[in-house]
Amino acid sequence: MFDPSPIIAGDRRALARLLTHIENTDAEAAEALRWLFPHTGRAHLIGITGAPGCGKSTLVNALTPALRQAGSTVAILAVDPSSPFTGGALLGDRLRMRDLAGDPGVFIRSTASRGAAGGLARTTADMATAFDAAGYDKILIETVGAGQAEVDIASTAHTVLVIESPGLGDDVQAIKAGILEIADLLAVNKADQPYAENTVRALRASVDMMPANVAWKPPIIQTVATLGQGIAELVQAVEQHLAYLVSSGEGQRRERERLRHELSTRLQDLLLDKLVTRLGDGNFEAAVERILARQWDPLTAAKHLASET
Amino acid sequence: MFDPSPIIAGDRRALARLLTHIENTDAEAAEALRWLFPHTGRAHLIGITGAPGCGKSTLVNALTPALRQAGSTVAILAVDPSSPFTGGALLGDRLRMRDLAGDPGVFIRSTASRGAAGGLARTTADMATAFDAAGYDKILIETVGAGQAEVDIASTAHTVLVIESPGLGDDVQAIKAGILEIADLLAVNKADQPYAENTVRALRASVDMMPANVAWKPPIIQTVATLGQGIAELVQAVEQHLAYLVSSGEGQRRERERLRHELSTRLQDLLLDKLVTRLGDGNFEAAVERILARQWDPLTAAKHLASET
Repeated sequence: MFDPSPIIAGDRRALARLLTHIENTDAEAAEALRWLFPHTGRAHLIGITGAPGCGKSTLVNALTPALRQAGSTVAILAVDPSSPFTGGALLGDRLRMRDLAGDPGVFIRSTASRGAAGGLARTTADMATAFDAAGYDKILIETVGAGQAEVDIASTAHTVLVIESPGLGDDVQAIKAGILEIADLLAVNKADQPYAENTVRALRASVDMMPANVAWKPPIIQTVATLGQGIAELVQAVEQHLAYLVSSGEGQRRERERLRHELSTRLQDLLLDKLVTRLGDGNFEAAVERILARQWDPLTAAKHLASET
Repeated sequence: MFDPSPIIAGDRRALARLLTHIENTDAEAAEALRWLFPHTGRAHLIGITGAPGCGKSTLVNALTPALRQAGSTVAILAVDPSSPFTGGALLGDRLRMRDLAGDPGVFIRSTASRGAAGGLARTTADMATAFDAAGYDKILIETVGAGQAEVDIASTAHTVLVIESPGLGDDVQAIKAGILEIADLLAVNKADQPYAENTVRALRASVDMMPANVAWKPPIIQTVATLGQGIAELVQAVEQHLAYLVSSGEGQRRERERLRHELSTRLQDLLLDKLVTRLGDGNFEAAVERILARQWDPLTAAKHLASET
């Protein structure tokens, strides 16, 4: 049986082993997370997202030592929903290891597990729990995203940082409208490039259109991550948002919503498992075949099976 | 009560009304979909995805008349997970309406509903069912995507077309690895631009590395959507993939998997609703508060509540 107690004491190897158990969604992971949970609730979860090419990894690499200097320990969770086996996350991981390795206050992990709908969201949430229990002050959850991934991290994180890069065309303009609904902080990276001013102006105009009674409007920070420009301002904005979360009660509200969502999804999984066990796989598959033959519609089939409880 | 029968007869207004009911996830939608379901199972569902700026909308606009000429009716469902209220999808909609309007064999709808996890996936699946029942031969499900959205459409569609544009940096290279796992067809759009050859070569190298016993390897089609170049080849590739799906049994396998997933998620929703109703909202919220206070971990709480059934 896996012993999670060294994780609380700061044992990095034990933490790494737990993260692997979490990726495998095995019984050890569930038991360890159950044991660790009372030790959580202190970390500041920061979701970081942006379209491919915005310089997200470089920005996270620049942000990390700045957060360390400000006194925080940092865990980085690079979520790559695009590939379970290969490529980006692992490559980025290795490059970062080189830059940030040797600092015991930094832990980097990438994950790319996929599979069932919600599988990645579950893995991400569980890994955040593990880092929280291990005592990391800031947990940076980084996703490649334009779309659902952003929405998912928004429901996991306390603070969401959206990174834009100077104008990539009309699609990007369109996305911005949606981004304002999830962004707590906006960074325009590559701010030394042409069109950066246009992007800042467009974002500024959108932020200015938010209703006057909105308690927090996302600040827009211009960064050049490769040169370290704007990073100090970004750290300051992160801390200001944390102070806002605490003082307004919004942090507690988000935490409650996050845990309510987690309880709901775990209940759904358990209830379906229990039902299928009771029905037997054969009866479940027989219902699938009837739907395939268009003899039943999915909702009617679901109601019928659910009434067996 | 909403009468769905005119939809089968080709009534566009009735179809449009149903799509609105589906967006509202109301009782009329559920009842109509139940009634329509036996009339489905004939359409070819084609998921189309690509990063912002790849020219996805332009390509879909060029592909549609070509599919019409080849004898198919076409429904376009533009899914915009980034914004529930504003921007891209609706703007694109209006531009398209201008180009494609007046052809009774084309129906265009955009949706941007969001909310609960899986809400958009459910809306997309239900709208596809509605188009299928209305008799559209090809249903193009278009998402902005790099990440989970792509995975979701892959589980909804029979054929997945991934659009790339010439090299946007290292992040794009990284994404490609994952894309091969979901793409049935690859289009390199803006093929007249610099670096297009590099992108084609990188994709070709990845496809060539697929195991020899893989039955279908995604063809790579070079397009310039603004000039209509490569569109005929793309239509041909779409039809070849459909023929492969039918002859290999893979189409039936995907359809079964899709319906199994839909049955599972509907069951999960029903079972959770039933349980919360039985427990009472107060007991559910009391469990959330105990988790928030770190007295219970989410899994233990879920097991406890599930044992009440």
